[in-house]
Amino acid sequence: MSELQTFRRSYIPPLPTILTKDVNVKKCEALGAAADHEKIQALFPCTYGLPRVEYEECTGKVWRPMNIGVVLSGGQAPGGHNVIAGIYDFTKKVGGNMYGFRYGPRGVFTGKYVKIDDKFMDQYRNMGGFDMIGSGRDKIKGDDQFQASAKVCNDLELDGLIVIGGDDSNTNAALLAEYFQSIHHRTHVIGCPKTIDGDLKNDYIPVSFGFDTACKIYSELIGNICVDALSAQKYYHFVRLMGRSASHITMECAFETHPNYTFIGEEISQKKKSVKQITQEVVDLIVERAKLGKNYGVILLPEGLIEFIPEMGSLIEELNEVIAAGHTAQDDIAAHLQPASRELFDYLPQSLRDQLTLDRDSHGNVKVSQIETEKFIVSCVQKELDALKAQGVYSGSFNAQCHFFGYEGRCGLPSCFDTNYCYALGYNAGVLIHEGLNGMMSTISNLDAPVEAWTAGGVPVTMMMNIERRNGKDEPVIKKALVELDGLPYRRFVEQAKKWRLGDCYSFPGPIQFTGPAANVINQTLAYEIEERRMRKH
Amino acid sequence: MSELQTFRRSYIPPLPTILTKDVNVKKCEALGAAADHEKIQALFPCTYGLPRVEYEECTGKVWRPMNIGVVLSGGQAPGGHNVIAGIYDFTKKVGGNMYGFRYGPRGVFTGKYVKIDDKFMDQYRNMGGFDMIGSGRDKIKGDDQFQASAKVCNDLELDGLIVIGGDDSNTNAALLAEYFQSIHHRTHVIGCPKTIDGDLKNDYIPVSFGFDTACKIYSELIGNICVDALSAQKYYHFVRLMGRSASHITMECAFETHPNYTFIGEEISQKKKSVKQITQEVVDLIVERAKLGKNYGVILLPEGLIEFIPEMGSLIEELNEVIAAGHTAQDDIAAHLQPASRELFDYLPQSLRDQLTLDRDSHGNVKVSQIETEKFIVSCVQKELDALKAQGVYSGSFNAQCHFFGYEGRCGLPSCFDTNYCYALGYNAGVLIHEGLNGMMSTISNLDAPVEAWTAGGVPVTMMMNIERRNGKDEPVIKKALVELDGLPYRRFVEQAKKWRLGDCYSFPGPIQFTGPAANVINQTLAYEIEERRMRKH
Repeated sequence: MSELQTFRRSYIPPLPTILTKDVNVKKCEALGAAADHEKIQALFPCTYGLPRVEYEECTGKVWRPMNIGVVLSGGQAPGGHNVIAGIYDFTKKVGGNMYGFRYGPRGVFTGKYVKIDDKFMDQYRNMGGFDMIGSGRDKIKGDDQFQASAKVCNDLELDGLIVIGGDDSNTNAALLAEYFQSIHHRTHVIGCPKTIDGDLKNDYIPVSFGFDTACKIYSELIGNICVDALSAQKYYHFVRLMGRSASHITMECAFETHPNYTFIGEEISQKKKSVKQITQEVVDLIVERAKLGKNYGVILLPEGLIEFIPEMGSLIEELNEVIAAGHTAQDDIAAHLQPASRELFDYLPQSLRDQLTLDRDSHGNVKVSQIETEKFIVSCVQKELDALKAQGVYSGSFNAQCHFFGYEGRCGLPSCFDTNYCYALGYNAGVLIHEGLNGMMSTISNLDAPVEAWTAGGVPVTMMMNIERRNGKDEPVIKKALVELDGLPYRRFVEQAKKWRLGDCYSFPGPIQFTGPAANVINQTLAYEIEERRMRKH
Repeated sequence: MSELQTFRRSYIPPLPTILTKDVNVKKCEALGAAADHEKIQALFPCTYGLPRVEYEECTGKVWRPMNIGVVLSGGQAPGGHNVIAGIYDFTKKVGGNMYGFRYGPRGVFTGKYVKIDDKFMDQYRNMGGFDMIGSGRDKIKGDDQFQASAKVCNDLELDGLIVIGGDDSNTNAALLAEYFQSIHHRTHVIGCPKTIDGDLKNDYIPVSFGFDTACKIYSELIGNICVDALSAQKYYHFVRLMGRSASHITMECAFETHPNYTFIGEEISQKKKSVKQITQEVVDLIVERAKLGKNYGVILLPEGLIEFIPEMGSLIEELNEVIAAGHTAQDDIAAHLQPASRELFDYLPQSLRDQLTLDRDSHGNVKVSQIETEKFIVSCVQKELDALKAQGVYSGSFNAQCHFFGYEGRCGLPSCFDTNYCYALGYNAGVLIHEGLNGMMSTISNLDAPVEAWTAGGVPVTMMMNIERRNGKDEPVIKKALVELDGLPYRRFVEQAKKWRLGDCYSFPGPIQFTGPAANVINQTLAYEIEERRMRKH
């Protein structure tokens, strides 16, 4: 163990005051779905339209012992171990046993679990990673696996199963909650919002955990690269960041570091920009900066960038459908595309065509994180600059360096914010189980206040759902929260980014600190979102 | 400015006690060259064989005003601004003016400089990057540039010029020192040991600045990746690290993070390993781990790895000579190679052949940092594993993720160690100038003690020199300090690395801290080297 690990392991996260009190559940307004209400209601007859819950203080509460299982689902996010620590400390308070299912949801239906005790738990308090019990990308699917899960939960006499996951994982949790309730099973299912991508949030869930830490790690690196660009004055750095469906990470990192240009996928998508237009935006920047004698800069882009380009999005969607229909050879796949997509497909470099057709994830989707979008953009930009040079319009030098930051941020030591937030999310999930709730997500709010003043409660998972087409089928899924172009964070970004283009206003956040004056800042997009919600309320 | 920047900017580095006293220079033993003594002496008649210097306390010292110029040369390293701050504070103490030459040595002979004052200096105290005055890779070459430099230094009435650089830059500084002394010029030249690669050190220079911070930044990321590998259990991460000629960074990061396998270039070189042997070492690791059910891991390699492979080294050396002789077309180049090199050249993938022949740096050398060595190794490993799978010997899964960490570490916020070390190096360089020394390098030692007990002095730059072949010519250069296979750090590494292969003993250093218990650790290779020197002395 490093000195920093030893130091952090001894940290005791404070609980929001409300969670240290005797409380009863207060039922608030009932919540529907994000869209497709009837279809969602039909699929979730037991767990649709539940009320949001808060707590109200009471006296003489009798806390009953609870047996609780926990499962980590999907990609790693800093703070997962502290969610488990929060749940564990709740079960210690009320009595009962706690189990961790191994390697994701597969551990639930196959009955692979470990009983959590003090010694085991204490090794992982405030630590990054999901290595305590492991995670997995399997979903609980089909009658057999649902029934097997019910048996395992019954054998362990679980009062609750807490699923720590992103949108897909919580969708799966909601299906399990619905199934359990339909068969009057004793086990209640509660979700916790996890994803570094930051796209699982809404009016009741301010942010998913891990986003803060991951953005700070990426911003540390981008800040270093900005200073390097300014010091060496000879490279354009293209930095691809995680965020397949949403550009929250990219926007937050832009706020933290002030790069010269930032692609926000949602803007590209809504303005229906083409590959050519996007290329031109970078070319314009480079030509303008060259006129100022600046042949260097930093450009951020989300990994999902090419999916946001409508013509590319259409192509990928068609590819997903064509491949789901069983076509595998590249020529055969190409032959089944619509003319516009066919043209674009043929225009792309062979390496990108290979990536689009060969590598698919377990959901059958293109592995966008494997596509080196930044290299694709660089080669398009280089071509245009060469043409401008030949025309005598541009005489600068263009040397590109490409970076991708992804795995570096998923298992970092959680920031002070994520450490405290996750602990509260987990502890609160335990309270929701205790109060007999099912199909809800644990929520902690008022996050810009000191931890003691944070509020706690729950919202039904179904309120985030709509119907989407996956692998050629209509399926209920949690609607991803995208960057909203009329939202305060994006408007502030647009306003500030103008200055960042030509002036070198790089900001340098540095490494995450756990003590000292910089240790307790929350990320800027969250701050803007909280500000916006307050403005809407008043 | 971020909160952390503001916090760090107000930090005042302590000085070693000896540098706060009135001192006189104490001349110690005279030092020769690293090798090729006669040739070095002939090239440096004025500055060869100078004595090493220390200080001894005195009373009633009269400190005279000094005008000092400073230049940053070569790649960025965390702490450069603090060397400048140390020099500046020395000139403030004794009186006189200080100038920063812009964008590297070119600023000296073209007379591009900025006068440094409190306001300008204070912006950069304890900050990363070289953006205060910029850096450059030019060398001062030929009579015209030497004469122009002499004129600029004379016009500014400089008592001293301090060159902050690595081996090439300090070689250039030594040539300038020799030239100035030969014409009885008033300006004395002093070097400061900078390079994140850690290959500029010897019995008198414990470490070059920037190494500590860069290794800690890379180790933070590698530690995160190790935990990710362990959590996801599905990827082999191949991490390429800076270090073109030496593997100090790679070894230090291995000590910090305990990866499953680590390539040390010097070992490959001395044991004359082939591409095939190196591939086999990784394949053996993967097959053994697969038998334990572990289809994941972390492997570190230095960017210069392929240059360390003798058959590759021969090829690159031949390519450097053939291209220096004016051959440019790939076929033409290939036709001029020796048979063994020709065979290897033809065997390499086209992309690597392109990189070896098309991209050259300003010294005419292959841009090794541009070669994606880790992808080259992965493709060799994949081929062998496919063969073993076909034979039924291996049934694991192999998914590789490649990373390169370079630019991310050059401009980080300097660690507490580098902050203090650089400040002392700069202040001490000022003292050496004041004491009329020339052609010396500033040295600060006893670095595992508290700062106050650090010692200070200087060694002649020529004592590090030997003759090497560059661009087809014999040239005097500072001999790079490689990882010594009979040295204590490497022996400890070998001993410990055995356990890291199959057991997952990953260590997790986390982000650099500036306060708290983890803030003041020095790096492990330095600690071992200090230990070894003490053992040798007794």
